[in-house]
Amino acid sequence: MEWKNFDQLASYKKLAELAGSVEVKAVMAGENGAKRVADYQVPMSNGLTYSYAAKAVDEKVLEALCDLAKEASLTEKFAALYNGEMINTGEKRLVLHQLTRGQLGNDVIADGVNKREFYVKQQERIAAFAAKVHAGEIANEKGEKFTTVVQIGIGGSDLGPRAVYLALENWAKKNGFFKMEARFISNVDPDDAAAVLASIDVAHSLFILVSKSGTTLETLTNEAFVKDALKNAGLDASKHMIAVTSDASPLAGSADYLDAFFMDDYIGGRYSSTSSVGGAVLSLAFGPDIFARFLDGAAAEDKKALEEDPMKNPAMLDALIGVYERNFLGYTATAVLPYSQALSRFPAHLQQLDMESNGKTVNRFGEPVSYVTGPVIFGEPGTNGQHSFYQLLHQGANIVPLQFIGFKSSQRETDVDIQGSTSQQKLNANVAAQIVAFACGKDDENPNKYFAGNRPSSIIVGDQLTPEAMGAILAHFENKVMYQGFVWNLNSFDQEGVQLGKTLAKKVLSGNTDGALTAYSKLLGIF
Amino acid sequence: MEWKNFDQLASYKKLAELAGSVEVKAVMAGENGAKRVADYQVPMSNGLTYSYAAKAVDEKVLEALCDLAKEASLTEKFAALYNGEMINTGEKRLVLHQLTRGQLGNDVIADGVNKREFYVKQQERIAAFAAKVHAGEIANEKGEKFTTVVQIGIGGSDLGPRAVYLALENWAKKNGFFKMEARFISNVDPDDAAAVLASIDVAHSLFILVSKSGTTLETLTNEAFVKDALKNAGLDASKHMIAVTSDASPLAGSADYLDAFFMDDYIGGRYSSTSSVGGAVLSLAFGPDIFARFLDGAAAEDKKALEEDPMKNPAMLDALIGVYERNFLGYTATAVLPYSQALSRFPAHLQQLDMESNGKTVNRFGEPVSYVTGPVIFGEPGTNGQHSFYQLLHQGANIVPLQFIGFKSSQRETDVDIQGSTSQQKLNANVAAQIVAFACGKDDENPNKYFAGNRPSSIIVGDQLTPEAMGAILAHFENKVMYQGFVWNLNSFDQEGVQLGKTLAKKVLSGNTDGALTAYSKLLGIF
Repeated sequence: MEWKNFDQLASYKKLAELAGSVEVKAVMAGENGAKRVADYQVPMSNGLTYSYAAKAVDEKVLEALCDLAKEASLTEKFAALYNGEMINTGEKRLVLHQLTRGQLGNDVIADGVNKREFYVKQQERIAAFAAKVHAGEIANEKGEKFTTVVQIGIGGSDLGPRAVYLALENWAKKNGFFKMEARFISNVDPDDAAAVLASIDVAHSLFILVSKSGTTLETLTNEAFVKDALKNAGLDASKHMIAVTSDASPLAGSADYLDAFFMDDYIGGRYSSTSSVGGAVLSLAFGPDIFARFLDGAAAEDKKALEEDPMKNPAMLDALIGVYERNFLGYTATAVLPYSQALSRFPAHLQQLDMESNGKTVNRFGEPVSYVTGPVIFGEPGTNGQHSFYQLLHQGANIVPLQFIGFKSSQRETDVDIQGSTSQQKLNANVAAQIVAFACGKDDENPNKYFAGNRPSSIIVGDQLTPEAMGAILAHFENKVMYQGFVWNLNSFDQEGVQLGKTLAKKVLSGNTDGALTAYSKLLGIF
Repeated sequence: MEWKNFDQLASYKKLAELAGSVEVKAVMAGENGAKRVADYQVPMSNGLTYSYAAKAVDEKVLEALCDLAKEASLTEKFAALYNGEMINTGEKRLVLHQLTRGQLGNDVIADGVNKREFYVKQQERIAAFAAKVHAGEIANEKGEKFTTVVQIGIGGSDLGPRAVYLALENWAKKNGFFKMEARFISNVDPDDAAAVLASIDVAHSLFILVSKSGTTLETLTNEAFVKDALKNAGLDASKHMIAVTSDASPLAGSADYLDAFFMDDYIGGRYSSTSSVGGAVLSLAFGPDIFARFLDGAAAEDKKALEEDPMKNPAMLDALIGVYERNFLGYTATAVLPYSQALSRFPAHLQQLDMESNGKTVNRFGEPVSYVTGPVIFGEPGTNGQHSFYQLLHQGANIVPLQFIGFKSSQRETDVDIQGSTSQQKLNANVAAQIVAFACGKDDENPNKYFAGNRPSSIIVGDQLTPEAMGAILAHFENKVMYQGFVWNLNSFDQEGVQLGKTLAKKVLSGNTDGALTAYSKLLGIF
């Protein structure tokens, strides 16, 4: 197994030669289109399907992508990762987020402990804590039950857990699993914390401070903001707060918290929804059993990602097609379009996951690469996006590949029949219609009503957005991003690009500035 | 005044020659950077400032852009628009959204009425209605006050009004102007309506059905959904609903609504926040006086857009620099980064405004153009984005221009001092730091810690996010998009690209499909 730059592989040249050989419009036309939909799909776990019929690939391109997978040793690299090699070369860390939901290979021993056992233990401790909160055994100072849980965290401590909470909130309400309302404070903008605090009953709220290092500026500032509010309400902050942190952080074992649950350096923020970072808030909101089902869904999808043959491995295939589009078809962005209001913040999570992992131009050995890497990711739920930015997607100057997500049933299963169809049928009719409209376009004598087509898309389809399905979809994209990082020879697990801004912000706050930094500080009225 | 394609102008060639002549990193370094910040800014209305110091322009490029403005007759074209010429050539309509907040030129008479008077009259009718609701004179069947207002609409009937509502919600609460909670139902996904209905007290809720034509499928479906819920609660739907529609629509004058307020064909959905579409929900939520202040802010900014000299016209200058970046520097996307949690959904509004207006490759005469047009727009509030996708913005393979927005004061003015600075100071220190980090980068022997810089950005800075400031910022971007459409010779006011999907969705629902459309319908379990 070798770590080579993508453009040093024989597949790179071969794929470059194949670029543009498949016209989506042509292959998706007529009954051949129907055959492609039937053939070009891979089963995922938990009843999900990954369909790539509307992508600009054919047997030849797929064969070249399979060769690439082999040449880049994708399966071996994943094995190295889950068996505990130091894959995060920049920060010299293991990468163990898959281990928070299952064990794919050997025991991983680090810092003197079996890491699977460590993660399971944290999950169990959270489950026991959540059960006591739900039973009222852990309660506020007057012995009253906590009704709201508020996560204080930013980046991966916010986006993933918030997206999953919103994804399952209505499902939980419908199915009797809803235990506590969850809210999130992330932005250092004081209006964020103030608005959340004004909208909740602080006396019955439990706050979760999430910071791996215990030193994240935004999070500690918001903690102080919250403690201030608790104090002003005559409450003892230490009776209203727990911490999720590393066991070496100053927050661990502090008397300022009711309890502390641990993550470690081997779980990157954007990969932390299945660790204690997602575990505490989701177990409190929906109960530990639902969180466990979410983990089971992710673990099942991780197993799918083990398959060596990309044609049977949805994450790997999705990754390879994405690389082909990025490096050889020249597309710079990808739109994520879930046809499910519950996934309203899932595109924001994927935006971080993908752009922070692979938005890099230096390989895992710290050498500049000379090919393009991760795309811009954006998206909004359908059908809303249709009435917004789809104009550009259909008729704009640049082609944007599309990632649809859809479900056969709604979560609440409350529906109305209007003009002979339910809302869910209308929703899914729109998905089907859009995929075909993007792929096949429409001829028209009036150029303003002409659709060129050839806009490639894929779709993940499930029966219903359950905890298992959510876990599986989350893991699918984590593994896709990982495989793309392997192809591009990047370290997908550090984020050096966020450091410079932090350093300069500290300079501003210390008053130690010159030049443009001083001028902008004045413009913004900081001093 | 001629409508010519951009590449037929002499300026096109000149700008192409200048492309890449300015290195942001070089011009922003040292004390020259401070001087640029002082010099390269234009006052907007309402105390706002547009700063473009960190853009890849210098006196030569700016001169060429000013020549372009003249050569493309931008001021004359805007005058033609506000004086009532048929600027929306595709749909053969006038474009009058600026007239909803002020009159910039001649009286515009259409459909036999003075349109300014028509819009003012609707605003007055809404103000009177809202006042009665707030006074309890218009109440539910038991004579109890309405406490919640729910907007049912999609696209422009949702994104703009929702963004503005969220922008002013906390300001209104802090300053004693908060009258009613507002909620929004947009997605045809039945879980959207079901979740909103489950979270409100329907007996005390007033619903606003927004559909210009009275035929928008999603909106009528959600109306039926809501009526069902009202009926199930034993309530008379017609006593809980008003309509915002055109006076020719089937909804106008219907006994199904308490009242109806009008817009017309000259207000595009994405430009409708200052019409009755935004007026009803915002006047009910915050009171008609606050809505009037929002309109005043927009009107003042429209006046700024009249200035013939781009160096004194922030919207025109912003537009021209954006065109330069798109057509000559080759950038395909723009990130909108408000450092204000209240603007959390403003990027989603701009995404529609820009991408639906200028995501086109056919000119206003229906002829294909051979240059690129509108970019992909995406964004999230800072500091959250910093902990998410900024990695790619700093070190990714493609440069993405950045549009920052910041305010000297927070809205609630509740703050804490941690480590010697307030949250607001920390927030703005981050803005200043990011602009400089993106522009100037940082040398480092370790390529992983090296920042190339040369990432261009601009910033709009205000004192506080008030109704006036919100109106001005909204109008700024509307006018920017308009000017870019003029340069690109597009019709920025139709949206033919959304039609094909609608047609195909109807086909699916009628069961009249074949090929891939049938196959996807099956995959999605529609029938």
